Amino acid sequence: MQEMIRVGILGATGIVGQRFLQLLDGHPSFAVTTVAASDRSEGKPYTDACTWRLGGDVPRAALGLRVQAPEPPLDCDVVFSSLPAEVAGPVETRFAQAGYPVISNSSAHRLSESVPLVIPEVNPEHLGLLDTCRDAMGAGGGFIVTNPNCSAVMIALTLAPLAARFGVEAVVVTTLQALSGAGHPGVSALDITDNVIPFIAGEEEKIERETRKILGRLQGGRVAPAGFPVSAQCHRVNVADGHLAAVRVTLGRPADPAELREAFASFRALPQELGLPSAPAQPIVVRDEPDRPQPRLDRDAGRGMTVTVGRIARDGVLGHRFVVLSHNTVRGAAGAAILNAELLLAKGYLKPGA
Amino acid sequence: MQEMIRVGILGATGIVGQRFLQLLDGHPSFAVTTVAASDRSEGKPYTDACTWRLGGDVPRAALGLRVQAPEPPLDCDVVFSSLPAEVAGPVETRFAQAGYPVISNSSAHRLSESVPLVIPEVNPEHLGLLDTCRDAMGAGGGFIVTNPNCSAVMIALTLAPLAARFGVEAVVVTTLQALSGAGHPGVSALDITDNVIPFIAGEEEKIERETRKILGRLQGGRVAPAGFPVSAQCHRVNVADGHLAAVRVTLGRPADPAELREAFASFRALPQELGLPSAPAQPIVVRDEPDRPQPRLDRDAGRGMTVTVGRIARDGVLGHRFVVLSHNTVRGAAGAAILNAELLLAKGYLKPGA
Amino acid sequence: MQEMIRVGILGATGIVGQRFLQLLDGHPSFAVTTVAASDRSEGKPYTDACTWRLGGDVPRAALGLRVQAPEPPLDCDVVFSSLPAEVAGPVETRFAQAGYPVISNSSAHRLSESVPLVIPEVNPEHLGLLDTCRDAMGAGGGFIVTNPNCSAVMIALTLAPLAARFGVEAVVVTTLQALSGAGHPGVSALDITDNVIPFIAGEEEKIERETRKILGRLQGGRVAPAGFPVSAQCHRVNVADGHLAAVRVTLGRPADPAELREAFASFRALPQELGLPSAPAQPIVVRDEPDRPQPRLDRDAGRGMTVTVGRIARDGVLGHRFVVLSHNTVRGAAGAAILNAELLLAKGYLKPGA
Amino acid sequence: MQEMIRVGILGATGIVGQRFLQLLDGHPSFAVTTVAASDRSEGKPYTDACTWRLGGDVPRAALGLRVQAPEPPLDCDVVFSSLPAEVAGPVETRFAQAGYPVISNSSAHRLSESVPLVIPEVNPEHLGLLDTCRDAMGAGGGFIVTNPNCSAVMIALTLAPLAARFGVEAVVVTTLQALSGAGHPGVSALDITDNVIPFIAGEEEKIERETRKILGRLQGGRVAPAGFPVSAQCHRVNVADGHLAAVRVTLGRPADPAELREAFASFRALPQELGLPSAPAQPIVVRDEPDRPQPRLDRDAGRGMTVTVGRIARDGVLGHRFVVLSHNTVRGAAGAAILNAELLLAKGYLKPGA
Repeated sequence: MQEMIRVGILGATGIVGQRFLQLLDGHPSFAVTTVAASDRSEGKPYTDACTWRLGGDVPRAALGLRVQAPEPPLDCDVVFSSLPAEVAGPVETRFAQAGYPVISNSSAHRLSESVPLVIPEVNPEHLGLLDTCRDAMGAGGGFIVTNPNCSAVMIALTLAPLAARFGVEAVVVTTLQALSGAGHPGVSALDITDNVIPFIAGEEEKIERETRKILGRLQGGRVAPAGFPVSAQCHRVNVADGHLAAVRVTLGRPADPAELREAFASFRALPQELGLPSAPAQPIVVRDEPDRPQPRLDRDAGRGMTVTVGRIARDGVLGHRFVVLSHNTVRGAAGAAILNAELLLAKGYLKPGA
Repeated sequence: MQEMIRVGILGATGIVGQRFLQLLDGHPSFAVTTVAASDRSEGKPYTDACTWRLGGDVPRAALGLRVQAPEPPLDCDVVFSSLPAEVAGPVETRFAQAGYPVISNSSAHRLSESVPLVIPEVNPEHLGLLDTCRDAMGAGGGFIVTNPNCSAVMIALTLAPLAARFGVEAVVVTTLQALSGAGHPGVSALDITDNVIPFIAGEEEKIERETRKILGRLQGGRVAPAGFPVSAQCHRVNVADGHLAAVRVTLGRPADPAELREAFASFRALPQELGLPSAPAQPIVVRDEPDRPQPRLDRDAGRGMTVTVGRIARDGVLGHRFVVLSHNTVRGAAGAAILNAELLLAKGYLKPGA
Repeated sequence: MQEMIRVGILGATGIVGQRFLQLLDGHPSFAVTTVAASDRSEGKPYTDACTWRLGGDVPRAALGLRVQAPEPPLDCDVVFSSLPAEVAGPVETRFAQAGYPVISNSSAHRLSESVPLVIPEVNPEHLGLLDTCRDAMGAGGGFIVTNPNCSAVMIALTLAPLAARFGVEAVVVTTLQALSGAGHPGVSALDITDNVIPFIAGEEEKIERETRKILGRLQGGRVAPAGFPVSAQCHRVNVADGHLAAVRVTLGRPADPAELREAFASFRALPQELGLPSAPAQPIVVRDEPDRPQPRLDRDAGRGMTVTVGRIARDGVLGHRFVVLSHNTVRGAAGAAILNAELLLAKGYLKPGA
Repeated sequence: MQEMIRVGILGATGIVGQRFLQLLDGHPSFAVTTVAASDRSEGKPYTDACTWRLGGDVPRAALGLRVQAPEPPLDCDVVFSSLPAEVAGPVETRFAQAGYPVISNSSAHRLSESVPLVIPEVNPEHLGLLDTCRDAMGAGGGFIVTNPNCSAVMIALTLAPLAARFGVEAVVVTTLQALSGAGHPGVSALDITDNVIPFIAGEEEKIERETRKILGRLQGGRVAPAGFPVSAQCHRVNVADGHLAAVRVTLGRPADPAELREAFASFRALPQELGLPSAPAQPIVVRDEPDRPQPRLDRDAGRGMTVTVGRIARDGVLGHRFVVLSHNTVRGAAGAAILNAELLLAKGYLKPGA
């Protein structure tokens, strides 16, 4: 029987931290041994330190744990980080410098030259940056691997098969994003009831830049971003979970909607080939009803790891358009990080008792 | 003292019909004398025939009225129509043929060659079509004037000053539309709670086609649509009133965001010059806060007749972008029709006791 | 291997009908062989006849089925009915007269003298009415068993252990009920966004009367309702699933909150003893956090079959109070009917190939 | 022309503070000269210190003001306080000791023996406590007058005519309270979307105790609380403004619903007699539709100062029941305080240039 990889979760009391615990409950390779947080809950039993907000009960693994400070050393082989952006940067660096593999959902290092920003179905080859990353982190062998912003994931994931088949020349994205993307307490109910907020700090820039890095090419030890421009306008809407994006795209060669549909629906990639535990059978599902995808009906597709596409059509300005939806705290956060960890394990980058 | 124009409202029991009554309460030139509806409430007192949904009490003018069938003749000088699209077409034609001026919020005739589709601040000169229209309707002197779809209004209104100063070459619009746009009962609460619906039947086509007609040029007795392409993707969100649109636009000449801001904020037009009673002092207000416009905070600007613009910025794909919001049942429906009627009155097209 | 009971679902296209299909997917004893509906979808494939609203995909059993008219004969051993109240009465009677066991979630027959109104944990002995019921239905051996109104279920279920230990003398219930209780389309979003509706037609009377029948005593071939008065005030709130009720109760003897807590938490009954497939391990779970139960967090407890109680305290007027929540379309509707069917099967009232 | 009373607002940046400014805009007797807050915005221009959340623009009076620390002396004749409960107590005492009349919406002093808790329509005679209050505050002539909790206002106001005509023997109240009652940011949207929270800290006790003080009798220099018990269960619902309460009441003598209706609808009191500027023509309006009152439709009745009652009926346990609604930040907070100030002015307790 395979020895389990012992996992420490940084930011374990937040919304994404709770998703980590929920998704790792019963995982075949990862066992949570440590929870840490930066929110002054240090030393408390996990169940006292946070209010569990995901329905059901706190996963068993967390029941006996006390919250640690998010500083090395911690009793684990790898750390999963969902620390708030304003503290994640230096903390994650210290863990990597102390020899820990860091699988991060935070934005702090996503655009660092030596840090891979990876969606296993899209750009697993960017893990080639890890040699550079390890060198940058000193002799301990630690490194940082990041996953994208909760909206950028689904955009890059749907662009990937289009880029491969048709080429992509320009992308226009308009998002309708869920409340859980802002964490807890996050958005005030008084601000969003009977309302929409056309602003999420930093989000438009993240989508525009991360999408191009993910779809960029690794050469000569660095990632050259994809050359096409990306435009993003972001909105917060009164939905608990599930980000939706209206996408227009200009392709490199003529294609009709049926070809796009086929490119999405037939898309399979390395995680599916490797049978990674969190990999959905289909990364992208196409719904043909005229009013799908919808957050409440589609966010849990593939246990939150499948992205749902609908309304594929010609567009009078950009050429093509569609709507895409994914679960922002699963495929867009905790699940994305776990899938990265599974890929790293499969590739030999993670070892128990390291 | 000026004699009042006697108004009949077709579709008086619906959401837009109720807005007509509310907005005409105390109007200096129009007095509601007749209410009609196609919903089997014929013969009932208005207060029994409909549930008043706008807050406050039913306007005094409606208290003594019984609901009539929506067929000529009716006791009025002009009819305002917010009939459902599926019945509006032939009914409005019959009224016009019977000699009534018809001011319609319905989509049935908006794209007819001989029917003007007018926003008084944008294309009052399209009323030049009325000679053609009257001819088409026979000897009675009746005609039909329409106002745009609830989203197309704010898009055309914000494009107008841009088109005048810079030229417009392409428009990409993504809407987040309120529930009242679907009428009552309209959207099921079970479908929209904790959800977004990326589909509104016919809406994308309406925005794409109506915007180009409104910004088109009247020449030789017909309107040549504007030449630029318009792309619209539409979403229903859980907001009672107030449509919001994220807009990208390619302009005909270079401009920076401050120039766009100035073009919006300084925009004044014929209704402001004429001092039409429903004309807002400013057709477009610009909010500089990063998180505006918002439906709940901005929909009532200018008593619902002012459109609010924010987030003006450069766009990496189209060149320019901004967000616009307006009250969909005031500026986007009943208020739009009333402003058309006020313009027609000022231009001599309406007369009491006709 | 046990032969499966073949089930026909009446009202299969509605919200509760869809729950029946979802909950019966993979059931060890019941297999859906027929779907019927009264909504003019007769003859269509099930997947064309209804829009699936529960997330995930339509259960496999329904994929090949065409919608039948809800009239006997149908190809099944038992019918589960969630027909609309206005048609359920005579239709269910015709099925029972034709020899079918009818397990009904409709209100039509709940208060009939010869029809048992049963919660398996509370009053399974009321099935003793079935002899009377069969006689009333003629020679075919058919009968009708009903489950309570979606709010009455959780109220009667929580009163049961209190009645047994302390006696109940008066009950005051105020409900906050979910949208799915009104079916689809049900409540208009325009009516409930940023709003509460303090009215649900017939609901207060149902709760007041059904609670007393369920907790009444079967003697001499009829049920004498419980003697205590019940007061119900009902509200519709903007929640998709999960009815909540604030309950005050006057008990027959002094008790402190800890005793009530113990009575709830230790409550087990016949379905738990028999190990019925849909019976939750605990019919009632007590949450001690001050802000529970909450619809979104607690409605899925025990896969929707566990009722959650919290805020147990003394009350200055009635003596005791608490808050209770349950999933209104599972424990409050489809799940309640299925649990009744499982009890009937265990008691020998249902047979395959009947 | 009457000299204006100069008003200082403590807590001016919060939700209730903003309502103070909005409601005092254009007031015939009160002019805001000072804004103060405890939220570290001291020294900033008011428009920088807070985000205006009420729609429309910041009232003119506040445009030139800078935020002061909430400590005496301030440049005003009277202070209106909506400070957070945790700081209000000592701050308000210091202002009263410094000679200022303090009109407070905070809970800190409501139950103090020497502080009147007043609804002008219900217990204006409790202002008789002010002699005691002034003595307690020292030689400066300052005092504190409080208005009730946002739910207690509407409950006491509707009980007042019942108590006068029939006597009241027991009251059972279940509230559905709006988000604005928790201030801003207050409730997290993630906690209340598709949800209800059956807990508001301290609220049930406030309603139970304040209602009895308001309806108590001033004798011998102190208020003896009303003798009847009050039971309150409180819930937070997803509504922006407008608290709703389901009320049962046991009266001192038999009455039928029509008598209760008449008692509510005909109720007029001192503020109406005196014609106080904020007094609504009718303190209580009765709606006879079966589904009213509703927050969105009725909260603005009487410009937010009229309480709306509906669903008056017999109750099987307590005897009588009804539903009541009021605007929680107008009649339930800022408007209540302003009406108290108007009463104090009419009674000679406030003077300009004091």
